[in-house]
Amino acid sequence: MKTTVCILAILVCAVAAVAEDYSSFVDPLVGTRNMGHTFPGATVPFGMVQPSPDTRHLSMYDDAGKYTGEAYRYCSGYQYEDTTIAGFSHTHFSGTGHSDLGDITLMPVAGIADLESGDSYASRFRHETETAEPGYYRVRLDDPGVEVELTATTRVALHRYTFEQAGPAQVILDMIANIYNYDGKNVWTFLRVENDSLVTGYRQTTGWARTRTVYFALSFSKPFTSYGHKRLDETPYHGFYRRFDQEQNFPEMAGREIRVNFDFDVAADEPLLVKVALSPVSTAGALKNLQAEAPHWNFDRVRNEARAEWNRELGRIQIETMTEDQRSVFYTALYHSMLSPIVYEDVDGSYRGLDQNVHVSEGFTNYTIFSLWDTYRALHPLLNLIQTQRNTDMIASMLAHFDQSVHPMLPVWSHYANENWCMIGYHAVPVIADALIKGNDEIDLQRALDACVATANVPYFDGVGEYRELGYVPDEVSGSSVSMTLEMAYDDWCIARLAEMADDEGLAAEFDRRAGAFRNVFDAEVGFMRPKKRDGSWRAEFNTLATHGQGFIEGNAWNYSLYVPQNVPALVELMGGPERTGAHLDELFTMELDDEHIAHTEDITRDGIIGNYVHGNEPGHHIAYLYNWTDRPWQTQARVRHIMDTMYGTGTDGLCGNDDAGQMSAWYVFSALGFYPVCPGSDRYALGSPLVERAVIELAKGKTLEIRVENQGAANVYVQKVEVNGEGIDRLYLTHGELMGGGTVVFFMASTLEH
Amino acid sequence: MKTTVCILAILVCAVAAVAEDYSSFVDPLVGTRNMGHTFPGATVPFGMVQPSPDTRHLSMYDDAGKYTGEAYRYCSGYQYEDTTIAGFSHTHFSGTGHSDLGDITLMPVAGIADLESGDSYASRFRHETETAEPGYYRVRLDDPGVEVELTATTRVALHRYTFEQAGPAQVILDMIANIYNYDGKNVWTFLRVENDSLVTGYRQTTGWARTRTVYFALSFSKPFTSYGHKRLDETPYHGFYRRFDQEQNFPEMAGREIRVNFDFDVAADEPLLVKVALSPVSTAGALKNLQAEAPHWNFDRVRNEARAEWNRELGRIQIETMTEDQRSVFYTALYHSMLSPIVYEDVDGSYRGLDQNVHVSEGFTNYTIFSLWDTYRALHPLLNLIQTQRNTDMIASMLAHFDQSVHPMLPVWSHYANENWCMIGYHAVPVIADALIKGNDEIDLQRALDACVATANVPYFDGVGEYRELGYVPDEVSGSSVSMTLEMAYDDWCIARLAEMADDEGLAAEFDRRAGAFRNVFDAEVGFMRPKKRDGSWRAEFNTLATHGQGFIEGNAWNYSLYVPQNVPALVELMGGPERTGAHLDELFTMELDDEHIAHTEDITRDGIIGNYVHGNEPGHHIAYLYNWTDRPWQTQARVRHIMDTMYGTGTDGLCGNDDAGQMSAWYVFSALGFYPVCPGSDRYALGSPLVERAVIELAKGKTLEIRVENQGAANVYVQKVEVNGEGIDRLYLTHGELMGGGTVVFFMASTLEH
Repeated sequence: MKTTVCILAILVCAVAAVAEDYSSFVDPLVGTRNMGHTFPGATVPFGMVQPSPDTRHLSMYDDAGKYTGEAYRYCSGYQYEDTTIAGFSHTHFSGTGHSDLGDITLMPVAGIADLESGDSYASRFRHETETAEPGYYRVRLDDPGVEVELTATTRVALHRYTFEQAGPAQVILDMIANIYNYDGKNVWTFLRVENDSLVTGYRQTTGWARTRTVYFALSFSKPFTSYGHKRLDETPYHGFYRRFDQEQNFPEMAGREIRVNFDFDVAADEPLLVKVALSPVSTAGALKNLQAEAPHWNFDRVRNEARAEWNRELGRIQIETMTEDQRSVFYTALYHSMLSPIVYEDVDGSYRGLDQNVHVSEGFTNYTIFSLWDTYRALHPLLNLIQTQRNTDMIASMLAHFDQSVHPMLPVWSHYANENWCMIGYHAVPVIADALIKGNDEIDLQRALDACVATANVPYFDGVGEYRELGYVPDEVSGSSVSMTLEMAYDDWCIARLAEMADDEGLAAEFDRRAGAFRNVFDAEVGFMRPKKRDGSWRAEFNTLATHGQGFIEGNAWNYSLYVPQNVPALVELMGGPERTGAHLDELFTMELDDEHIAHTEDITRDGIIGNYVHGNEPGHHIAYLYNWTDRPWQTQARVRHIMDTMYGTGTDGLCGNDDAGQMSAWYVFSALGFYPVCPGSDRYALGSPLVERAVIELAKGKTLEIRVENQGAANVYVQKVEVNGEGIDRLYLTHGELMGGGTVVFFMASTLEH
Repeated sequence: MKTTVCILAILVCAVAAVAEDYSSFVDPLVGTRNMGHTFPGATVPFGMVQPSPDTRHLSMYDDAGKYTGEAYRYCSGYQYEDTTIAGFSHTHFSGTGHSDLGDITLMPVAGIADLESGDSYASRFRHETETAEPGYYRVRLDDPGVEVELTATTRVALHRYTFEQAGPAQVILDMIANIYNYDGKNVWTFLRVENDSLVTGYRQTTGWARTRTVYFALSFSKPFTSYGHKRLDETPYHGFYRRFDQEQNFPEMAGREIRVNFDFDVAADEPLLVKVALSPVSTAGALKNLQAEAPHWNFDRVRNEARAEWNRELGRIQIETMTEDQRSVFYTALYHSMLSPIVYEDVDGSYRGLDQNVHVSEGFTNYTIFSLWDTYRALHPLLNLIQTQRNTDMIASMLAHFDQSVHPMLPVWSHYANENWCMIGYHAVPVIADALIKGNDEIDLQRALDACVATANVPYFDGVGEYRELGYVPDEVSGSSVSMTLEMAYDDWCIARLAEMADDEGLAAEFDRRAGAFRNVFDAEVGFMRPKKRDGSWRAEFNTLATHGQGFIEGNAWNYSLYVPQNVPALVELMGGPERTGAHLDELFTMELDDEHIAHTEDITRDGIIGNYVHGNEPGHHIAYLYNWTDRPWQTQARVRHIMDTMYGTGTDGLCGNDDAGQMSAWYVFSALGFYPVCPGSDRYALGSPLVERAVIELAKGKTLEIRVENQGAANVYVQKVEVNGEGIDRLYLTHGELMGGGTVVFFMASTLEH
């Protein structure tokens, strides 16, 4: 025993010694072009504040009030092709398929800006002047001649503006700007100029989050000489404020649409620093956060601490790869897997709950941004493995959400004390089940089970009533009825496993029965999952290649028919056995989709398609691993390597679709290590084909897992043999126990099949 | 000593035995006709909730967007002439000269209402079916055939609806209604149907209070069978809520303009009860308040407790009067003097502060609604006398407001965590000074002084900069420049007294100098205070009878020239001595004002004028007492009795102008007892002519003051002699010490002058 420990320790040290500045392998600009929807700004792992440049502020609707969809490209506020920066705001989603946020926008201006229009102080910029690193961002604004640098603690953003020219300068606080806008999105803004260098306030918006308020405290490193504001809404009456000159040096401001200027005289090359602390609770909370996390003006110290924090978290997986690009893609993916969920509480544990009341997180840290339809698949299983405490806290946050929910339900897609009800199913369940099944003993099983069961039984939620009555969601209820049925069946299987753990046999049986609902929407005659009508008949018109309105969402029948993660053997049987299932998979990956069907595929660019397989859409994420249940398991190995090679890359276009709050990246991290959680809620990881040459993973309780790949090579995609702690295994999965026990998994690779 | 105590105890008991149900002397309908602006609904003394009928919901602007002023008559929501009730809302000002509030409107409906329009469920009513008592209100809604009864605890309103007909019925929760409306007044509404009988939520409005939120919890005595809502604003996007049928039985609602229906089947004569708890903090706070104050469904118990509470507070002054009407007017006035300021905190002491943060009142109870320009004159001095603890808490609330103010300033006119900046001066100062000068030792003198000094020195506040520089507010700054100068001079005199108490001689001298500013606006040539221009010249056009734009506000030169409460002898000297001042006063009270000048007088009806003296306007309130400083002090006695006889009465039109948050009523209470605080901040009360025959006043620390009036009679208005504890006094004032020492003041009356 002692010997083993020593050897491991030496190994870890060896890896650490070679490459401890993991941040240098990360490129935050990856995914900022096309549809990756990542942001390049500065943040710490799971940080509550994400200062980042927004290149355009788009309207969600055209002048005629029609939804344009144009804002979709700007979910994170930044598109690499753009040549101007509109401002630096403090809240950003990473990789989501919908937009919101972009709060508290700052912009340095040389001279005097026109507050009537945000365009007046937008500035051109060039990527040559741009640097993006974990926890640090830098750009030169060409119009005012200002270098902008950003860094952050968990709750505080730091800006450093260096003005090239001496003279009058302004910092604009734009409380109107949103990542996307429409009339009515800004509900209320409240600001106070507390003294000559401190401003507090909040902004309340509606939108994807219906009732969302962001509180802040903003501090300048030197006093402004004067300030002013414009209120651009026309809310008519505000008491007897009219007796004041409100627009000049009057310290109270409120309304719906407000921009503020703070005036300075700057010397040439004089740096002006701004700190912005956020709070979900109050301006008092923001001030507390400011004081606790950034009581000083040492920008570089914060930048260095942010990088050190990233190195600590990125270093939880230490890898060796065949190429530098592979290392960069891996650590960039790992970076993207830690940008959400984000911490959502003040330093004292206070946070705003779903009921809009202020709660205190007793015994956990509260998180928000749960894009669960995406992230239950690989992101949460990854966090469960390498960020166990955070994942436990995230589950505690979900259970708190449940307690605060009026339905009550666990989160579906929640952010900033709101449920936005995006996507289908109730996929907090598999996140919770996955952690419990894999042995997390900090979560109260019965409380979790009760929350899952209640969530699965809210009759007015998205077809649940009909699903419970008929065993499937009928086509009449929704254009995504089959996806809904399949995903709820999987979630229900997870509940059955929890019920089993809790020795509740009746409940387990009930949910195991519900988990079989996939059978009710499989049409054996056509060999596909298919929309079924309320009367039990199949829907007549049925296009297995189309994505929209065919019973599915973000996937067509070819892909979604493969969605029975909880019982792949049964699926294989339905599909006609291992050989026919293998053939179906081969056809999926090799068929040629016509342009029309490609055009209607969501969320990806043409490059994101392999045959009819769409890696940018999450329902496909387990598909390559399904070969393991067919007559041709080696195809998993080939396909997975092919996907890693072609769907992920360095460069701004390195993501083939939305990163989806880290799910796309988490898929890569698992796959590169050689295994993948096809069915979260089971303790198994399907074996794939590792891309790394070697990896050391820091696990909970000080344990370490080493993955070693023998005979690794670009063409050596096939796994000849796998040994766990020196013993060969004759199965196509690893168990969670095997990973968490620590030790070594060795893959033996070959360029040809020897099966 | 012992004997005295015993005699007093017997006296108190005797009075109490005769008339302990003081509530029966109160008519809450007094002032509900014309411009009294009182409300008839149910509330407890200083209660946070005031459920009351609103007869119309008016728009502040006409269809063309022009301010109509029509809403002015509806400051309290109710006009006696109206024949319909639009709803029962929970927040009401009493007697103010501006409107706001009217939150959380309920209305019982027989059958099914149309939520598109509030008119659909407005109901006719008749005054014959109406009962208004302290803590209780009852009316029959003729259209649905529903008896509505209201009662309240401090923070919880109880409604009892008795439906005459069996059948389907609804209770409408109208979150759109305001006492006055305009597009944009409703900022946001958030509602949750927690279960089949409990609703929580809040509404955020702008208006007189710029950023105001009222939280509530609403509980029905029996479950509703279903519910629904309409959102009538068109805020376009709210996440994926669209996947639900939000309008039927969906428990989350949010938007700007929302009406909700709760459906019941009622039996004939079945009472349905509703409890509505308010909170300034959160729905969690409202639930706490609900549980703490009304955990049961016993309407009559709450009603009885409310009445008992009123009897306790009204009984602090036990009087005997010549007529029953006089008794009724007195106790109604005393009632109206306890409707604001109101408690503004949850049962746990949490409240929302001016900075919109949640604070906890450590060591005091937080109050709001400070109509200080009105109430510093007599209401706060009255509360200081008979509600000492509450007045101390109100001052603590003002100091908390100061701490939370960004300027920082003490409240000017504040309500619901907002400053509305109504009217002029900084009259929190005299309230604080009055309490301190009169010996209140619970207030920290230095902290209070610092707050007063800071408040008086905010340079951008309403002419303060110029006032400090020039010694007066120049005409160019404001149409009310003289009023501003005079009132700030008085406030500054109060600060000087506090500085004196604190042994800060320099500060006292500085503010005594400022207090002399009244000299700078007195034009000896015309014998009036007069607007002065920046260059020191008097304004040329000057109409001493006009109220608007002549340098004054709510008063003309004839009245306002008499405003030097801090130094009446100096004023008398300026006016040319006691005789000329007496003549000026006589002329004021007897001159005939032409119709045009009457029409432009604010705030009163024709009945509210005696000559050119306008009792409905507060700047006149000390004027009748000024005769005490002239050659004809007996005229004070005659005028005061005349004002009491003619400006106050029983009946709905019993108030000659806005009650102004209790100031008009407090004037009456003092005057009826025979003395009045002409100069709060001094320890003197000017003697007048008592109306009562006898009064026993419960003072702090268990002491009791008896006022006895010998030879009282309708015509016996002149005071021959005053004895304090058996000794005659040869001066025209009582000191606070004399009152608070306990004992007896005896007035000897006559019908003729024997001076």
